[in-house]
Amino acid sequence: MASDLASLTASEMLAALARHRVTSQRLVEASLAAIVRRDRSLKSFVRLSPEARAEAARSDRRGVRRPLEGVPVGVKDIIDTARLGTEYGARIAAGHVPAHDATAVHRLREAGAVVVGKCATTEFAHMHPAATRNPHDPTRTPGGSSSGSAAAVAAGLVPLALGTQTGGSVIRPGSFCGVFAFKSSWGRTETHGIHELGRSLDTVGWFARSAEDLGLLGPVLLAGHQPARTVTKPSFVRLRTPYDALASKAMLAACDDVAARLAAAGAEVARRRLPAWYKSARDAHRVVISVEASRAFARYAREQPTRLSATLRDFIEKGQAAEPDYAGALAFGDRARVHLDQVFGDHDVLIVPAAAGEAPKGLGWTGDPVFNGFWSLLRVPCVSLPAARSRAGMPLGVQLVGRFGQDERLLAIASWVAERLKIGPVAPV
Amino acid sequence: MASDLASLTASEMLAALARHRVTSQRLVEASLAAIVRRDRSLKSFVRLSPEARAEAARSDRRGVRRPLEGVPVGVKDIIDTARLGTEYGARIAAGHVPAHDATAVHRLREAGAVVVGKCATTEFAHMHPAATRNPHDPTRTPGGSSSGSAAAVAAGLVPLALGTQTGGSVIRPGSFCGVFAFKSSWGRTETHGIHELGRSLDTVGWFARSAEDLGLLGPVLLAGHQPARTVTKPSFVRLRTPYDALASKAMLAACDDVAARLAAAGAEVARRRLPAWYKSARDAHRVVISVEASRAFARYAREQPTRLSATLRDFIEKGQAAEPDYAGALAFGDRARVHLDQVFGDHDVLIVPAAAGEAPKGLGWTGDPVFNGFWSLLRVPCVSLPAARSRAGMPLGVQLVGRFGQDERLLAIASWVAERLKIGPVAPV
Repeated sequence: MASDLASLTASEMLAALARHRVTSQRLVEASLAAIVRRDRSLKSFVRLSPEARAEAARSDRRGVRRPLEGVPVGVKDIIDTARLGTEYGARIAAGHVPAHDATAVHRLREAGAVVVGKCATTEFAHMHPAATRNPHDPTRTPGGSSSGSAAAVAAGLVPLALGTQTGGSVIRPGSFCGVFAFKSSWGRTETHGIHELGRSLDTVGWFARSAEDLGLLGPVLLAGHQPARTVTKPSFVRLRTPYDALASKAMLAACDDVAARLAAAGAEVARRRLPAWYKSARDAHRVVISVEASRAFARYAREQPTRLSATLRDFIEKGQAAEPDYAGALAFGDRARVHLDQVFGDHDVLIVPAAAGEAPKGLGWTGDPVFNGFWSLLRVPCVSLPAARSRAGMPLGVQLVGRFGQDERLLAIASWVAERLKIGPVAPV
Repeated sequence: MASDLASLTASEMLAALARHRVTSQRLVEASLAAIVRRDRSLKSFVRLSPEARAEAARSDRRGVRRPLEGVPVGVKDIIDTARLGTEYGARIAAGHVPAHDATAVHRLREAGAVVVGKCATTEFAHMHPAATRNPHDPTRTPGGSSSGSAAAVAAGLVPLALGTQTGGSVIRPGSFCGVFAFKSSWGRTETHGIHELGRSLDTVGWFARSAEDLGLLGPVLLAGHQPARTVTKPSFVRLRTPYDALASKAMLAACDDVAARLAAAGAEVARRRLPAWYKSARDAHRVVISVEASRAFARYAREQPTRLSATLRDFIEKGQAAEPDYAGALAFGDRARVHLDQVFGDHDVLIVPAAAGEAPKGLGWTGDPVFNGFWSLLRVPCVSLPAARSRAGMPLGVQLVGRFGQDERLLAIASWVAERLKIGPVAPV
């Protein structure tokens, strides 16, 4: 039964809890048991919460049930949890225990979720890798920076986990690990209590094993949440980008296949191509993230440089050198965001690759965020759907990009797509 | 001599220090003496640094002189100073002593400046007033939120002081107190270690009694500083805004007069009018600042609401209610920033009011930021020049607005204007 429980989605857990067929304590025990069994090799969790069992017991005693009452969740270790160590994947922050929950964690707990533990992150959510392995192939990266959150959900250790994205830190690991992943519009999620990486880019995102579960967190975590209208006839753009030459054939085929299946299901699917000048979006994103990171980490770099990885030190130096280009990169972002309205036209969602291809071999590099940084700069909400497989059997994510601020609608359309195309729920690997 | 020393500008101090005609210790003593003499009624400083004298002595012993070596400065109490109390003008932060300097303070110290003390701020740099009075008329507000910094410089207690602007917190008090004031482009100054008010709007600014002094801080505080080309023939736009009906006749006349005198001095001065749709900029700014503030203060509002002012509590509630409008307001800002390029055309600087008029009577309200929030949303750099007086003899600031990111050029043009039109140096009042 324990393995059965660990394989449930959050929606299934909530249904079973509502019918008193299970307790939060049993769900949390199942999650902890799965972690003990599986995580020694997977390394998706860096710390378990000593309070999880007691919280589950309190949850079971509550009369009024809240939206996530009793559901075990994982939280990326870049996100503060009160009295539970939060080390940001960084040697320099070893032993750090925050006094307060981040806003996102506060909202999760207010909704009744039980934080089981903290999930591995790359160093300060940048590129220096965590020890986490890809559940589909332990010789491959799970992606990053939300490495542990994506892997833990894919392996069925928790049904939901929080991540963050500044470049490609949610959508890329979502694609590599074969789960559903959502990155919010910049500004629609609150980042207080999350260690800053790039302040004009940082967003909260999350992972789930079904589109329905992905949507569960919208009302909990989206600021100013307003329910989406019922999705009747969404319309799509299969969008070619100036970076498509960097995508694998299988990835481009997966996007085309989703577009074709949507058209076959009766949806309107236009085909468009981003103008060539968008190619600068990648550089503009690099300038913005490196400058903002160099500022966020300036004091660490000044006071304890040897306790940062060489990767991060190099990135900070790049950021300092890029300062003269920062204002221009921000202004580029303004122009591209205004222009993107024309790219959408009357359509709801753009269909593009979630990553360049399958998860690369090796654990030393979390993969190229070329299909993500771009959208992070544009501030739009993104979903990765586990829609296809590579020849090696590795997951390939197809990315759905929504209009800025219309996060609820994107989540609703992602559910519509998953249902029509029969994508997910994903079984734990 | 002490009063003579306190009346010097920073540039004059640096010249006297370089010629060994004065020491930093004497300058700091003169500043402290002026504070003792004057500040009991003015209330521009909330805390003096017990280390200022020792720092001045160390400065006097240095061989190599740095750009601001030995110059006494004031720092707004929203900005962290290591081991020197920083209470953010907020009862809730009483007794707070930061462990680290804010980046801006670190940069000032690295340049050799001596922090004499902390200047009064409104509560968390919002509207609940500080006790500071206007040096020109103690029955009037000095403006806010950088109330103490503007008043201290106007009164000649320090030649330079740091402030911050999220709405109109530098340019408005600069106008009301009759000093030179500069607000940087968003992103050109680092806000780490400054208590957040509105994260997509917060900027560092500063006050001085001459345009030359205003320019002194550019190389120290502007990230990625690059020297401006020599100003030969700057060109201006006397810009009418949708808010001009809210400005006093004297204020509009002061702007027209500066424009006319510049034209008479041979500068090109065009006349333009902002499209009516810019009127929404004020509302968009209000949405952005209130939502961001409500998030920044969420934990205080949750845990200790009674220790916040009613003004701030009300603002936080407004922000929570405005959440559904936040993404739209951000998108409006993107569009307005892209459009503003057309407003500038080939010109360098826009000429507009720095405030609606003279400082209002009373200390309960810091005045209307209607001519500032607008520009804060547009992220552009702004200067207030003490160019005129009202019939009551109160100062009126004329605002120069530069292109986004071109802060060095705006500062150079402000010096050019001040020299041509013989504005300043301002004598202490």
